[in-house]
Amino acid sequence: MKLYVIGIGPGGADQMTPRARAAIEASDIIAGYTTYIDLVRPLIEGKEILQTPMKQEIDRCTRARDAALTGKTVAMICSGDAGVYGMAGLMHEVCADHPDIDIEVVPGITAACAGAAVLGAPLVHDFAVISLSDLLTPWEKIEKRLDFASQADFCICLYNPSSKKRADYLQKACDIMLKSRLPDTPCGYVQNIGRAGECGTVCTLAQLRDTSVDMFTTVFIGNSQTRVIGGKLVTPRGYETK
Amino acid sequence: MKLYVIGIGPGGADQMTPRARAAIEASDIIAGYTTYIDLVRPLIEGKEILQTPMKQEIDRCTRARDAALTGKTVAMICSGDAGVYGMAGLMHEVCADHPDIDIEVVPGITAACAGAAVLGAPLVHDFAVISLSDLLTPWEKIEKRLDFASQADFCICLYNPSSKKRADYLQKACDIMLKSRLPDTPCGYVQNIGRAGECGTVCTLAQLRDTSVDMFTTVFIGNSQTRVIGGKLVTPRGYETK
Repeated sequence: MKLYVIGIGPGGADQMTPRARAAIEASDIIAGYTTYIDLVRPLIEGKEILQTPMKQEIDRCTRARDAALTGKTVAMICSGDAGVYGMAGLMHEVCADHPDIDIEVVPGITAACAGAAVLGAPLVHDFAVISLSDLLTPWEKIEKRLDFASQADFCICLYNPSSKKRADYLQKACDIMLKSRLPDTPCGYVQNIGRAGECGTVCTLAQLRDTSVDMFTTVFIGNSQTRVIGGKLVTPRGYETK
Repeated sequence: MKLYVIGIGPGGADQMTPRARAAIEASDIIAGYTTYIDLVRPLIEGKEILQTPMKQEIDRCTRARDAALTGKTVAMICSGDAGVYGMAGLMHEVCADHPDIDIEVVPGITAACAGAAVLGAPLVHDFAVISLSDLLTPWEKIEKRLDFASQADFCICLYNPSSKKRADYLQKACDIMLKSRLPDTPCGYVQNIGRAGECGTVCTLAQLRDTSVDMFTTVFIGNSQTRVIGGKLVTPRGYETK
């Protein structure tokens, strides 16, 4: 019994790997959030589709597992990488009592890497990836991570920087980082990575604090060495020059 | 004048994106470390090749820049992602005085994502990526990052965990993390990701401390919630159960 958990990358077919494509083609049933299913629509003609709305992740994984238990090959589609805030973990949890299901995680390009490429090269040195969503994580834990990552001079990439209910979370996050980072620290954000309307913006940490972003935005905060070169956000490889 | 900096993913052609492939095919000159050039050999027949040995990164980027200045389209090949310890940053630095060169960074699947998929799903929640190489970064800075990332309960992915000159660095790193993480914290490491001999091993932090790895290994340390499920390393999406 085979169950693929597939990262299709940021959106366009040209950033999905041949391995991901082959796994989708080898599957009988395609599961996933409707928006992600739509991104692979040309590949899945004639296949059975298990669509589920956003946020019903456990239900989505359970239905995919049950489909796999019937002997069909199932593909769970994730945007970006299946293992970065994707379904790869939950799928293993949901299948814990079914060792006969062979779960294969197929990696994809996550927004940290795809967005960094749009802005230049902000994540060339050590970096931390933090989600600002407090749906499943206590906000105090997120604050601690922001604080410690900032103090340790990591480049920082923020996922889920905003939502209707969390309009001021990016501002809160910036205030925490401003305790240990200079206001003119080079930063940037990318909207609609790999999709129509892709747009990268370079700014300072002080400007970022007063910027409104939506949930389809990925945010980057430079480390103490990050500079703007030719309009691009660039982090050097290290702290010394040979 | 066009200069691509291309992440070809972990190794095999099936994990290189069509976008990366197209950029290589569109280029007149291919630059990069010999081992990476070899990985794309079938794509570059008849093209001019600028090979440089390991560690001569500045020379490699300068030569690629000079080739682009002649009007030829140049592709700089990186393994994994071009923007994660790759050449994307240095290329922007080297081309700082040549705004007429259009640098396009083409992202690829980095070892953090590719290796995580081999082990299961260790990076599903907030994570930090740290290189143990102190060639360009003071070791004290690396120690601080390990300490703070560990205290803030990040999942941690280590690049460059060892070399001939740094045989005991992984042990040192584990000792730092053991100050704030339990000895039985689930961990893992993957050798030769995406290449012949790919091998993932799950262990505890205490075991990892006494493990010898080579420079082609990527190491993963779970957070306080990470568990082993069916032999796989799995980090839950959060701290609460709905």
